[in-house]
Formats: sequence, structure tokens, C-alpha cells
Amino acid sequence: MSEDLHAVPDRARALLRVTRLDGGSPAERDDRVVVEEPLEIRLAIGDAPVEPLLLTMRTPGRPTDFELAVGLLWAEGVVRSPEQVLHVGYCLDPDLSAEQHFNVVTVTLSGDVTLDRVRLSRSLAVTSACGVCGKTTLDQLAIVGHEALDPAGGPRIAASVLYALPDRLRNVQGIFADTGGLHAAGLFDSEGRLLAAREDVGRHNAVDKIVGWALGQGRLPLEDGVLLVSGRAGFEILQKALAAGIPIVASVSAPSSLAVSLAERFGLTLIGFLRGERANVYAGAQRLTGLGEAAPRA
Amino acid sequence: MSEDLHAVPDRARALLRVTRLDGGSPAERDDRVVVEEPLEIRLAIGDAPVEPLLLTMRTPGRPTDFELAVGLLWAEGVVRSPEQVLHVGYCLDPDLSAEQHFNVVTVTLSGDVTLDRVRLSRSLAVTSACGVCGKTTLDQLAIVGHEALDPAGGPRIAASVLYALPDRLRNVQGIFADTGGLHAAGLFDSEGRLLAAREDVGRHNAVDKIVGWALGQGRLPLEDGVLLVSGRAGFEILQKALAAGIPIVASVSAPSSLAVSLAERFGLTLIGFLRGERANVYAGAQRLTGLGEAAPRA
Repeated sequence: MSEDLHAVPDRARALLRVTRLDGGSPAERDDRVVVEEPLEIRLAIGDAPVEPLLLTMRTPGRPTDFELAVGLLWAEGVVRSPEQVLHVGYCLDPDLSAEQHFNVVTVTLSGDVTLDRVRLSRSLAVTSACGVCGKTTLDQLAIVGHEALDPAGGPRIAASVLYALPDRLRNVQGIFADTGGLHAAGLFDSEGRLLAAREDVGRHNAVDKIVGWALGQGRLPLEDGVLLVSGRAGFEILQKALAAGIPIVASVSAPSSLAVSLAERFGLTLIGFLRGERANVYAGAQRLTGLGEAAPRA
Repeated sequence: MSEDLHAVPDRARALLRVTRLDGGSPAERDDRVVVEEPLEIRLAIGDAPVEPLLLTMRTPGRPTDFELAVGLLWAEGVVRSPEQVLHVGYCLDPDLSAEQHFNVVTVTLSGDVTLDRVRLSRSLAVTSACGVCGKTTLDQLAIVGHEALDPAGGPRIAASVLYALPDRLRNVQGIFADTGGLHAAGLFDSEGRLLAAREDVGRHNAVDKIVGWALGQGRLPLEDGVLLVSGRAGFEILQKALAAGIPIVASVSAPSSLAVSLAERFGLTLIGFLRGERANVYAGAQRLTGLGEAAPRA
């Protein structure tokens, strides 16, 4: 597996002493936990001065910190073309202490980027609108410019390929194996080839890292992409997939009602409870092929 | 089980048609998914006009929407005494459509409440500080007024009591059984009695609902409380426990490094991977008793 496939965060694990209880007497032992640290994302747009944008908890690493920052900006609609990202780097502020240095990322964007702080969804978004509901939330996605995919278009994926994805993702989940503490997201093509895998304490972050990677690779929109997430498929996961143009989203766990509504309205395929040779298809079943071909269970 | 123990959201499940894949041919069938809808929380402080504060996705229900709003305000340090909460209700704005009506909650607070939007942590918190790291994040918690618990104080919990908690929480997880889609949080006393259980698509929300319930019951701080969460124990979960004065936090899954640091610094007991008669104690092991008494595994 190449470094490109699965960028291993270098500061993702911490070693500490724990008291292990196992029926009998307690024992002290070393244990690894997944690192969670705040990341501050700062923006420099055109000639404007650098300004802090947001703070998010995440599992640190390089280049995944940069992927996270850029992927999040893409999902929020701040960045709309790869050319708008001029530079991404850790903050070089001399006042920062060593332990803070790698927790501040500055993204330099071209001057044509406009920032509507109110619209940023991962937010204390203070709406002036009178009310909210799932429908208005989906309406807003359309307003922000997320175009629906053609339900008749996009790739087809064979059921047998789909069933094999969770094991492929688990096989590259290095930090999870160590710490049991991470969410994973894997990007595949419709033939089931793993393109990238990312992990994080936050499952939204893992998807942002994938999208940020794809942006850096010039692969957006991911028209042939299949996104697999290790956790639940909620609204935000589908929103990020839509923003990246990923037509097929699969989860080993449950979707939410609003995630299903988003998938239906915007032409995405949504698969849940993907375990072994079982799955539920909540939307876009037309992209699945070979449904009758899999061997029935003994 | 009384309604007080586990307030069942009335709009928490949605019925829809799914394509079920199970090895052989696909079959259409009805399926329930957990409802995810946006909730807008509005504040009215003293005589000031009502203002929108934030938007969060959550699993709707009554009275859990009110608990969520108040619990979140408590965790963020906006509300510091139960007396400051004068009223909580759904927005009565006549312009709201029927489907929006139950997605806007207005909390009326007394005039002595001050709101520092910058400090709200579930936020696009735009810090003026120069850098961030786990240590500065913990420093900020102290500044906000979260006092450390006395590591030598607080309740003791027997290992045998601890081991029994996950099953007790699962037994009351009604929506999860239906949909497989929910996070749960359970509040117990140190004798293992279940005081409240709440579910949500967001695990942070489940804890906010617990704290909001406790505030309404006049039970804060929860000096004898044991909080069990169905998911991972990250920084925010520990922050909410600290804000509510809960001395013991247990998770069936992994903690993060920053969660462990918070527990150590603020005198909380943190238990992870609580499964069967096994667990890891990451901080505050002095609150556990009967460690040698459990029967060793065969």
C-alpha cells in the first residue's frame, strides 16, 4: 500500500498508562489512544490579512491536516475550484509554542473567493430565516449551488464488489487497529479499487480529508467514486459526498432520515448496514448490478 | 420504566421503503430509520429581543428538544444556575409552517445572563488567541469557570456495578432497537441505578439531553453521577460531564488523548472499553472499588 493510499498521521497515537480490569485483579499496562487535538484553520483571501475561520477537534497528521482544511472548505462551498487554493501550510507565527505549531493551518485562497460566514454549516449558523426543517435544509443545499446528480447517470457497481468494500477498508485502518478509537472513510472506484483511506476521531473529518486529498489530486468531482464510512450516515456525510460529486455512499451502519431525503432529492445512491453479503439500499438502487448473482447464504 | 427515565421522542422514527439485499434476490420492504432534523435554538435574554443562537442536527422529540437546548446552554457555560432559565418552548411564530414549528426552540433567560458568542465551543469559534493545542484548550475550560473535582472526593463505584451498566442502558434503548441508528447516554448513580437515558443521532446531543433533564430536575451538579455513553469518549463528552459535575464517565468504546488529559487535569474518572467484565481505566482509578473481587474469567 502506498503512502498516497493511506497517509499515516505521524502524531495520531499517544502512549499512556492505564489500569486494565479483566475480571480478576487490576493490572497497570501501557496502552495507545488516538490523539485528539484542536486544529485552527485560518484563511488568507487575496490581499486581505490572515483571519481565523474555525476551530475543530481532529486527529493530527501531515498531510492530512492540510487535506482536512481544504476538504472542509470545499464541503462548505468556500472553495469551488482547485485553482482557488494557492497555498496550504502550518502557521509560521513565531509566537506559537512548539506544541501549538502544528495545530494552526493557514489556507491561502485567490482573491475571487468570497466568504459567507453565515452559510458555513458546521457552525453556530445564525439564520435570519424564520424556521428550519429538513426540507428547508435541503433547499439551502440547492441554493448554495450543490447540483443534483443525474439519477440515471453515474457509475454502476456490482453487489459482489460492494460486499467486499468493508474488509478492504478495515485492512488499511492502521490506527484503529492500534487504538480502537477511530472513524474511517474510504474512497473506492466502481470496480472496488481503493483510492484513498483516511481516519479521524471525527467521522466528518475523515470524509473531509478524503475530499481534500481528491482536490489536491485534481480528481474533483469524483464521478466514479464510492464512499464508504465506518460509522453512521447522517446528513453531513451525505452533504460532503454531494459537494464532492460522489454518486454512491455506503455505510456499515444506519442512515438518518435526512440523509435518505438528501440522497433521494440529489440523485445519490445510499446504502446502509453493509455487512457481509447484506445491505439496505435506501436510495438510488438503480446503480447496483448483479443483485441476483450473489450466492445465497447457507 | 417511567417516562422520566427515558423520554421517548414521538417523532424519532421514520418509516420508508428500502431495497433489502441478502445474498440472493433483492426484496422491497418497510424499514424504520432514525429521524434527523435541524433544531434552531433561539435566546431571549431579559428584555432583549429574541435572537437565533445556533442550529444543530438532532433527533426530535418532546420534552427532549427542550432538554437538548437547555443542556447545551449549560455545557457552554451560558446558563450557570437553573433559576436563569425562565421558560423553554417551541417557537410560536405564525409564519412558521407546520413542519418547521417543532424545529425552533426559544429559551427565555433572566437578564443577568451574558452571552459570549466567541466562547461557544460548538462553533466556528474564531479565536483571537495566537495558537491552540490540547493544553490551551484545557486552560480555556478553567477560564470559563469549570472547576476541577476533588480527585479524592466524589462517589465510589464497585467494579461489579460498573460492569452491569452497559446492559442496563441497552435494555432501555428503544429507538436503537428499532433503527440501529442512535447514540445513547445513560445517567446512573454510584449504586448503578438508572436515573435517565437519552438517545440521539448525535452522541453529544444525547449527553446534552441528560444534562438538560438534570437541570430541570434541580439535580445539578450531579455529584453522585455516572455517565455511560454508547460511543467514543472524546473531548466534548468529557467537557459536558465536567460542566455538569459528573465525576465518573464510562464508554463502551475508546477515549481520545484529550479526553484522558481533561479527566486527569479536572479530577474525573474515565473508563473505556467497558465490555463484559473488562474495562480500561484511563484516569481516576481511585473511585473504583472491589477490583479484586470479581470472578476471574474461565
